[in-house]
Parts: sequence; C-alpha cells; structure tokens
Amino acid sequence: MLEPKKKYGELAPSERILLGAGPSGVDPRVLRVMSTPLLGHLDPEFIEIMDDTGDLLRYVFQTENTMTLPMSGTGSAGMDTVLSNLLEPGDKAIVAFCGVFGERMIDIAQRTGAEVKVVSGDWGRIIEAEQIEAAFKEMPDAKLLAFVHAETSTGIMQPVDDIVRIAHEHGALVAMDCVTSLGGAPVWLDKWGIDAAYSGTQKCISCPPGLSPISMNARAQKALNSRKTAVPSWYLDLTMIERYWGKERFYHHTAPISMAYALREALRIIAEEGLEARWARHEKNAQAFTAGCKAMGLEPFAQEGYRLPSLITLKVPANVDDAAARKHLLQKFNIEISGGLGPVKGQIWRVGLMGSNSTSKNVFLALTALASALNAQGFKASASAALEAATAVYDA
Amino acid sequence: MLEPKKKYGELAPSERILLGAGPSGVDPRVLRVMSTPLLGHLDPEFIEIMDDTGDLLRYVFQTENTMTLPMSGTGSAGMDTVLSNLLEPGDKAIVAFCGVFGERMIDIAQRTGAEVKVVSGDWGRIIEAEQIEAAFKEMPDAKLLAFVHAETSTGIMQPVDDIVRIAHEHGALVAMDCVTSLGGAPVWLDKWGIDAAYSGTQKCISCPPGLSPISMNARAQKALNSRKTAVPSWYLDLTMIERYWGKERFYHHTAPISMAYALREALRIIAEEGLEARWARHEKNAQAFTAGCKAMGLEPFAQEGYRLPSLITLKVPANVDDAAARKHLLQKFNIEISGGLGPVKGQIWRVGLMGSNSTSKNVFLALTALASALNAQGFKASASAALEAATAVYDA
Repeated sequence: MLEPKKKYGELAPSERILLGAGPSGVDPRVLRVMSTPLLGHLDPEFIEIMDDTGDLLRYVFQTENTMTLPMSGTGSAGMDTVLSNLLEPGDKAIVAFCGVFGERMIDIAQRTGAEVKVVSGDWGRIIEAEQIEAAFKEMPDAKLLAFVHAETSTGIMQPVDDIVRIAHEHGALVAMDCVTSLGGAPVWLDKWGIDAAYSGTQKCISCPPGLSPISMNARAQKALNSRKTAVPSWYLDLTMIERYWGKERFYHHTAPISMAYALREALRIIAEEGLEARWARHEKNAQAFTAGCKAMGLEPFAQEGYRLPSLITLKVPANVDDAAARKHLLQKFNIEISGGLGPVKGQIWRVGLMGSNSTSKNVFLALTALASALNAQGFKASASAALEAATAVYDA
Repeated sequence: MLEPKKKYGELAPSERILLGAGPSGVDPRVLRVMSTPLLGHLDPEFIEIMDDTGDLLRYVFQTENTMTLPMSGTGSAGMDTVLSNLLEPGDKAIVAFCGVFGERMIDIAQRTGAEVKVVSGDWGRIIEAEQIEAAFKEMPDAKLLAFVHAETSTGIMQPVDDIVRIAHEHGALVAMDCVTSLGGAPVWLDKWGIDAAYSGTQKCISCPPGLSPISMNARAQKALNSRKTAVPSWYLDLTMIERYWGKERFYHHTAPISMAYALREALRIIAEEGLEARWARHEKNAQAFTAGCKAMGLEPFAQEGYRLPSLITLKVPANVDDAAARKHLLQKFNIEISGGLGPVKGQIWRVGLMGSNSTSKNVFLALTALASALNAQGFKASASAALEAATAVYDA
C-alpha cells in the first residue's frame, strides 16, 4: 500500500486581490452558492437552473440564439469547441492574430484539418479592416473568419462592424472570442451579426473559472449540422451537447453542478445591475486607473482608442524589473497583476479591473501599490499625483 | 437592448439525497472550501495546491506515475483525453464493451481515426478473458486495450488481472475507466500494471462533478510522445497540459480554482479515513443494502461475484413502473436513484452508495423508501424484513 506522503493541512490561502488577466475576484454571493448541496444533473430542479442560465446568458450575449449554453470547461474549451465544431478537413478559415489568443485560435483551427490563412497584426494594435478584405481576396471561399474581440494578452478591443460585414459579403461565418469582454464591455451578438462566440466565466462575469459560455446562431448551427465528418472531440461535440441542453435532455455528460450554481448567481447579479450600467462602470474605472497610471509616469501599451475597459496594459518602464515589481505587489499588498506573454514578456503589465473587481476602491489601491512597487526600484512615481488624476475622472 | 425575461429568484434547491449513479452527495467540508476566495492559477500558493492534489491522487490511484492530474472537465473528458491522446489514425485498438461507458469508449476511439475492434459482452455480465485473448488473435498488433473497470450502466466490476496480462503479452497498452470505482473499491494502478486510467470526482471521491483525475505511466507517456499527428483537441492535449502540471508551469488554460480546492479537500478526507477502510465501508454497506433488497423480493441485476460496492443494480420487478417508482422516491423521500440506460431502460434501477453517501443510515433509508415505492404500486415489499436482513449484515 502506498501511503500519503505527508499530512496535508487545511486549505487556507492568502486573501488575494485578483487584478490580473483572470481569474478575477468573485462576489461573495457567488462563492456562497457553491456551498449549496448538489442536485442530480437530470433533476427537474436542475433542468430549471439550466433554463435560467441559458436565458441569462442570452441576455449577457445580447442574443436570441437558441444554442446558448456553458460548456463544461474553461474559456479555452469554448475556443476549441467553436472552432472544432465549425471546421473540418477541406474547409478554409481566416484567423486574425495579434496576440496569444489569436495564436491559440490558429493552432486549434489547424488541428481541425482546415486550411488556415493568418492575418497578422502588431501586438498592442488592432487588425485593420483592409487586412481582412485582402485576406478574403486571397481566400474568397473561406468558410469562417475567427477573431478576438478582447485580446487578453495585449489589452486591445477589436472593432467589429467592418470585419463582420466583409466576412458576410464573402459568405463566411464569423466566430468571436469575447472571453475578456463579455459582461464588462459592449458585446452585441445579434446586432453585430456574430455567428458564433465563446467566453469564460472567470473574467467580467466574476464567477470562478470552469465554464465557457458559447452561443451560435442558426447559420452556424446549419454549418455544424452539415459536417461531413464527426467532431473530433466527443467531449466538445455540440451536436450531442445541444441534445442535453435542448428540449430532449439527452444525457451526454454529468454537468458540473456547483459551477452551474455559481454561474447562475453571477448572471443574476449582472441582470440586477443591468448590462449598460455594468459596461459604464468598467469604462469609468478603466479611465480613472489609466489617468492615474499616466500621472505617475506609466505609459499605456494598447493602441489609443481601442483599449479594453476590463484589462489595462502598461509598458514596464526602462530599468524596472517586471518580475520584482509583481512580487512586490503580491507580497506587500496581496495584489496579483499579470505580466506579458510571448514577445512582450517582461515588457508589459496587465491589470484587470473585471466584474465585481472593477471598483474605485481597487483603482486607488492598485495605483498606490504600483507606485510603491515602482519607487522600491528607484523609479520615482507619485502616488498622490496618481490618486488625484483618478479622482478627477470620477469627479468629472 | 434585450432585457432579462423575468426576475430570477434566489437559488434554493430541494435537499436531495443523491443515491443514483452520480453525482453523489458531497461532504460538507468539501462544499465549504468551495466558498474560499480565489487564488490566481499561477499563484505560488495555488501551485502548492496542485502539488498536494497530484500527490493525493497518486495515493488514491495507488500509483507513482508522475503524470497524475485532474483534467479540467467531467469524467467523460478524462475518457476523451486518454483515448484521443493515445490513439491516432493508423493505430489499432481493442475496446471491451458491455455497457454505456464501453460504448462511449468505442465512439471516442473511432473518432481518433484508429481501427477499432470491439469485444462485446452481455449487459450485466463481465467480459471473459478468453474474449480478450481471441480479440488479440485477430488483431495482434493492437496498440491499446481499453476497458471499463466499473461499468456505471450495469453495476459490474470487471476483473483486471488476466486481461491486463493478455494485453501486455501482445505489447499493447491498457487504458482503464475507473470513474465509479476510484475511492470506493480497490484500484491498484501500479500493482495491476494499468498504463492509463481516468476517473471522475463526482462518484466515490464525493466531490462535485467538474474534474477528471487521470494517470499515465511512463510507457503510455512514451506512446504519447511518439505520436505522428497532433492531438485533435487542443483543450485535452496532454503534451501541453503536462507542461502546466509539471515543473515548467507553462500556462495552458486557467485551471478551475474552486474545483481544485474541492478536490484537494475531498482527497484529504479520503487520506484521513484511509483507502482500505474506505473500500471496506463501501463493501459492507453494499452487502447490507443488497441483502435488504433481496429480503423484500428484489433481484440484483449484475452478475454474482462481480458486483460493484459503489453502485448496486436491481431488476425492476414485473408489473412495477420504473419511472413512477423513481418519482415516488424523489417526491416523497427526496431520494434520487437512477434508472437503466440503453437496452435496460425501464428494466433496472441503479442505486449508488458512493463516498460520503455510503453509510448505514442511507442503506436503511433507501430500503425503507424503496419498500414504500414498491408497495405504492401493489408489489408487496416488507420494509421490516429488509431492515432486518441489512442489520444482520452489520451485526455479522
């Protein structure tokens, strides 16, 4: 008999303030419902919870799509689901790429066996509509255009209208990653004409990671149902999953009950606040934080005019050590922010003000802590100037 | 603006006693830790939680396999992971099938592009070693033998030794489904020579559904690393996931933090009780329940000598309506038991006594409730005879 290696102590993590790229902090109401004893996944009462969740997701996505449900995996499971359900060998796809999550889309699209055309942009900048236009000239029979609305690795919010129009003019479907925007910035699935979208629960929805809300319209569903081959992953096969979430209630896999409780509660909180009020709150706090950062000498990384309100990216100043500064924040303030990924590793910080964490309190706290971390490394940052600039935004 | 359809009320589900095929009831300690505020998925404290969880999973699987981790999905995600990581086009596999979960394995194995040979058995009976021997005669170059240790759809516990020996004599890897046995019945990964296994958290581990513990030995890892093609699902690609769980801590996807808290706590509870004591408890309660059922005139469905201690299957008596009886249990007693799937739909009941739900209290309660449901339909079942027979098992 192999015995346990040691005595494992009680779970007692430090109380972090999660101001990184996600997961974000979670409302106590959401944490609390997860302690609710379980229902079975086919219990009539659980079916009602599924129905409520579908309704509330349609509200948050601003869609009437019947196929709107949370996949039983984290945000990346949603990306995998949407692309691997809509693409198969023989298909062609255009993927816009200017950050880690666009890069991941390319990887996933290629695994489906589809021919993939990549439209590359600079990290920290948007993809221009002309680039999409040019890609469709070279690949006019692309079945799908995939792009990232909110690029978590750069802090960019991609304009949608033109690229959707171009894709539709060429008869292509449009798939959108809104992991870091859903619930924190305007997302209008139906108004924008997005055919398929996916998100995560752990960003602006302020629910723990573990589910990935997705939505597909009738056009995307038609493409799904016209596949010639089976979806490669049984677990992510929407043709089967829709039979559990639809009227049929056909057993596919055991739904993550406690996470479903959490998501429903998080969505209820969003409905109580109202989407537009929530978007405005995110916008205001992002402006205040950015003003404060500028006042202490920090420079935004993401292209002006296209900055996410949920995730603010900043350039790490010359002569400041990224890792040391983040360690300072974690150890002295219990604040987590994120560093850069890939080509901007060590060069940018990513500060999330997402969902219930997007508050003036956190803005002031993050500014104070950042000033402290900078000063500790000899970069003279004035906390009072930062707080004053932020206050001015709130007072305006 | 699309508005929410209605006011969604506070979550207040009925207090069910989950004695079905899963999810099972969860220890209050496990429910409680899920309310713990989140750590980030790369936080040093979360890394420690991952390390603890890996250690404790190795204990529960009775293995020293380095690659032992919870996949971020439910039990079926584990099945999909193991098969789609070990098989690719050009490979050959033998899959043993005598229930829904064996059937699912066939579906998944076929999606990988591998040639699949099916060994069929009767529902409610084991697969005989001779059948496996015969299959390897016809497909001597099979790369993998996949079988279900604990068939949740029939209540059968498959003997392991002979079929593993046969597979290894032919140089094949062995993949085992132990979703319904892990933590409730003897599972000896290393002693049995199992090369890859997967399970779920929502059965005998008594943790909510949402994670799928898997384990692979060096032989299986070697096969994984010798693939010619990419794993079709990015989300389930172990070549990437092992880099997050391994020393490298390379970011793959955001781990489901709250579920990781829950799993660690559920595993701690198992370590405190001790695996062998836990197996004995499941065995004793299953015997008592089965004795009680027989005493009131119910007949076990699964083959004698090969019955799971965690899931007891019973034949629905002639002239008794399956659905009406289960409705009676749910409405009068708040008890969930499961009906049959596929060819035994309407013909069997599946009663789970799993993890923290495997107690003498639940045995007595389930017997009383079953007697009530049967009597309501005119089937004369003596609750007192049942309770007496169960008591005799405990007193022996």
